[in-house]
Amino acid sequence: MVVYLVGAGPGDPDLVTLKAIKALEMADVVVYDRLANEEILKYANGSEMIYVGKRAGAHSKKQEEINEILIEQGKKHDTVVRLKGGDPFVFGRGGEEMMALLGEGIPVELVPGVTSAIGVPTTVGLPVTHRGVATSLTVVTGHEDPTKKEKQVQWNYNTDTIVILMGVGHLEENMREIKKHKDPQTPVCVIENGTMPDERIITGTLENIAQKDINPPALVIIGPVVDVFKSIKKLEDKL
Amino acid sequence: MVVYLVGAGPGDPDLVTLKAIKALEMADVVVYDRLANEEILKYANGSEMIYVGKRAGAHSKKQEEINEILIEQGKKHDTVVRLKGGDPFVFGRGGEEMMALLGEGIPVELVPGVTSAIGVPTTVGLPVTHRGVATSLTVVTGHEDPTKKEKQVQWNYNTDTIVILMGVGHLEENMREIKKHKDPQTPVCVIENGTMPDERIITGTLENIAQKDINPPALVIIGPVVDVFKSIKKLEDKL
Ligand SMILES: C[S@@+](CC[C@H](N)C(=O)[O-])C[C@H]1O[C@@H](n2cnc3c(N)ncnc32)[C@H](O)[C@@H]1O
Ligand SMILES: C[S@@+](CC[C@H](N)C(=O)[O-])C[C@H]1O[C@@H](n2cnc3c(N)ncnc32)[C@H](O)[C@@H]1O
Repeated sequence: MVVYLVGAGPGDPDLVTLKAIKALEMADVVVYDRLANEEILKYANGSEMIYVGKRAGAHSKKQEEINEILIEQGKKHDTVVRLKGGDPFVFGRGGEEMMALLGEGIPVELVPGVTSAIGVPTTVGLPVTHRGVATSLTVVTGHEDPTKKEKQVQWNYNTDTIVILMGVGHLEENMREIKKHKDPQTPVCVIENGTMPDERIITGTLENIAQKDINPPALVIIGPVVDVFKSIKKLEDKL
Repeated sequence: MVVYLVGAGPGDPDLVTLKAIKALEMADVVVYDRLANEEILKYANGSEMIYVGKRAGAHSKKQEEINEILIEQGKKHDTVVRLKGGDPFVFGRGGEEMMALLGEGIPVELVPGVTSAIGVPTTVGLPVTHRGVATSLTVVTGHEDPTKKEKQVQWNYNTDTIVILMGVGHLEENMREIKKHKDPQTPVCVIENGTMPDERIITGTLENIAQKDINPPALVIIGPVVDVFKSIKKLEDKL
């Protein structure tokens, strides 16, 4: 009886780790949701598959329901894999699932993954840190739990780079907040469907990015490293 | 003629991606340094190996020398792999190497890796984000370029979690700076040699962590998520 909490990486099935593949190969059952690229499920050939993500026209399962499914499956099987996009602990609610399982006496093994927050910018040639330009980086959610009384996200982050996950829904409000603390001309890069065939890159500034056509899943990257990315693209265009 | 900038992950050879393995299998020559686990080199069986890291008693090669080696090898071979610990763009100087290569007309392909900054805490059960506890995360270097006139690292980061890389050398000074902005009792967790057989975990507070025996390579993780980690460990101890 063990549940593996496994990061599937940002999308490209080649960005899965060996450790994730080994866990999938051992799985009796795989519990997965929308963001994990389904191609990766092939490694769990023959296992039972339980989808807990959003269905068109339906709500996704509540976290409590997912925890219950994991506990039930964990008690029933030798090896359960809970597969998540990116890394299970980067806005992945992996901590909650882990505590729920341990609370029921079910051991948990962790398999980190390439988080989209870093792996997606790296793949397109956008260095989230760069000597002399960015020695610090904030990763933050753009979609704070709306039921929270006291807002945790303040938007006055003073790191050189800011990477926003789940940032499409509230893009305009969030850019307005960040503009209070940074130059409105600060460059911004949005990467939609990073590492996937339909990847799109949109650039702009804090001032104008929210006016552009942007769809989730996307990352919003803010700071002078976006200019480094543009220099890299110019050099690539000359090749 | 192409140079792959490849992330090798934090140490555990199973935390390498399929994409990194495929690049190594194609390599005519591999240029690597200290932090990449040498076991991963087996995938490049038969390739030429160039070590550019620190040798005992000797200085590591300067970045300009490494760039020159990469350019020379890139011009000579079909496929060069530049292997780096973690992700090539997280304090990895990947951006500089990429620009040097592109500037000489050599194409570069990027392969992100599991960065130690996130993959190491995830592996031990320390969630760098956690609902209701941490919705933002800063990743920062503890070892700023000492030749820099204007210091970029300010230490007044207001995210819920702070992860410091290269933080052992200046641990005391850095904790003193952070204490100016956060409660001295804020919990701190240090992970040495994460994901490796000699992994060590040391916990303390901003006030006392610098008095403990800590050796590089290590990550310093600061914030209330360290308490979540402790709760998780307590639940594991009861199993
Ligand atoms: C619920 S969070 C989970 C993040 C995941 N645990 C990780 O480490 O990447 C989902 C958000 O991740 C980002 N994301 C995930 N995959 C992405 C991709 N391939 N391209 C761009 N953004 C992505 C988007 O911001 C999306 O809203
Ligand atoms: C020059 S930085 C390179 C980071 C790398 N590019 C990455 O993404 O992990 C080296 C620092 O990474 C951290 N580090 C790398 N591997 C580690 C490991 N296995 N355990 C703990 N810290 C590690 C340490 O803080 C070390 O000083």
